[in-house]
Amino acid sequence: MSLRIAEIFGPTIQGEGALIGEPTVFVRTGGCDYRCSWCDSLHAVESRYRDTWAAMSDEAVWDEVLRLSGGQPLTVSLSGGNPAIQDFAPVIARGRAAGYRFACETQGSVARPWFAELDTLVLSPKPPSSGETVDWDAFAACVRAGSAARQTVMKIVIFDGTDYAWARDAHARHPELPLYLQPGNPEVDPETPVDPQALADRLGWLVERTMADTWFTPRILPQLHVLIWGNKRGV
Amino acid sequence: MSLRIAEIFGPTIQGEGALIGEPTVFVRTGGCDYRCSWCDSLHAVESRYRDTWAAMSDEAVWDEVLRLSGGQPLTVSLSGGNPAIQDFAPVIARGRAAGYRFACETQGSVARPWFAELDTLVLSPKPPSSGETVDWDAFAACVRAGSAARQTVMKIVIFDGTDYAWARDAHARHPELPLYLQPGNPEVDPETPVDPQALADRLGWLVERTMADTWFTPRILPQLHVLIWGNKRGV
Repeated sequence: MSLRIAEIFGPTIQGEGALIGEPTVFVRTGGCDYRCSWCDSLHAVESRYRDTWAAMSDEAVWDEVLRLSGGQPLTVSLSGGNPAIQDFAPVIARGRAAGYRFACETQGSVARPWFAELDTLVLSPKPPSSGETVDWDAFAACVRAGSAARQTVMKIVIFDGTDYAWARDAHARHPELPLYLQPGNPEVDPETPVDPQALADRLGWLVERTMADTWFTPRILPQLHVLIWGNKRGV
Repeated sequence: MSLRIAEIFGPTIQGEGALIGEPTVFVRTGGCDYRCSWCDSLHAVESRYRDTWAAMSDEAVWDEVLRLSGGQPLTVSLSGGNPAIQDFAPVIARGRAAGYRFACETQGSVARPWFAELDTLVLSPKPPSSGETVDWDAFAACVRAGSAARQTVMKIVIFDGTDYAWARDAHARHPELPLYLQPGNPEVDPETPVDPQALADRLGWLVERTMADTWFTPRILPQLHVLIWGNKRGV
């Protein structure tokens, strides 16, 4: 059985969320059951990029992680696309045996038994600006599947006031999950340079909005990789 | 007994280190046993600013935290200056009784019994670029004093390759402490606008340096408050 892989890159730091700043090798899978309007990884999502995805065995995926990390254990992040539409249990088993840690980033639409083998499960339900609709029963199944993971967190991208209000409701559904908010990045074209001041301004807006409501539950973080490297791929 | 307080401000997000992104009220104390060459808080350090520090009772400090937070529990960060040269046990006792969490940021030169009452103790030994010299016996006493805290971490500011090499040695002395690296900020004048691209470049340099060494232990994070607000005070 082979895995569809859009890219494997790193080591670099995790740019966002609960593991922000953590040295990581990323395994970005190909294919997704969502089509978010502002997706920053369409090359791992849309079928028209399918020819750029590699069909790799779990052994080949693992060999590439080992090569990139020089055999030094670190965190491996499974992202996408939606990594949960494929079976990563064999890759995770290889990595854990070698002392590596695993994180998975998924919207929470498909639950997998291997969520239980993760160190960190990041569930990112998509707010209204995405154009998608969350199936909260499927989301709850993901939370249950990850209950044996070291930590499960919720991360929500916020583009506007509607998304912000939605995030408060999402947290009310799952108050047991540590919550991370992240300002949306409207500049997703890899050829367009990112304006770091605009990124700073979006973060400032979200901080001020949340603090004004005395809502002290979420941690509020930017995308550091966008700050450092813009929308370039492979970093 | 009164406390010397340079400023109390927030709520805003913690801009750096282990609690990055966490809603926080900051209690910045006046007075410090160090004089780091690149200190970004001289108004809380040097005696010539002494007249701007308030002498406050622990009750008055706590009332101000309550007012700023609207009575909603959140994290209170004791910073400075060096907060460890004063007695914060009474403030912490009041806050914990009300459900607040406490962090303290100190260089690790003075150990205090109240470190044991903290949720997060951040020890920031100062690298060679600071012009200061670390007393590692005093530092170890701080680690011991904080052993009952929920977490104790080490954070090191890196300005150059000498600081980076020093950080590796510091980690070797205390491998039990989770490590956070942070690029130094040479632009500390509150009147000078910060260049977000320069901040991004310094972060990129530190990430690339650390990854090139396959040193995957530290988390590497910028100062988000500098990104958002520059060197302005009170944010």
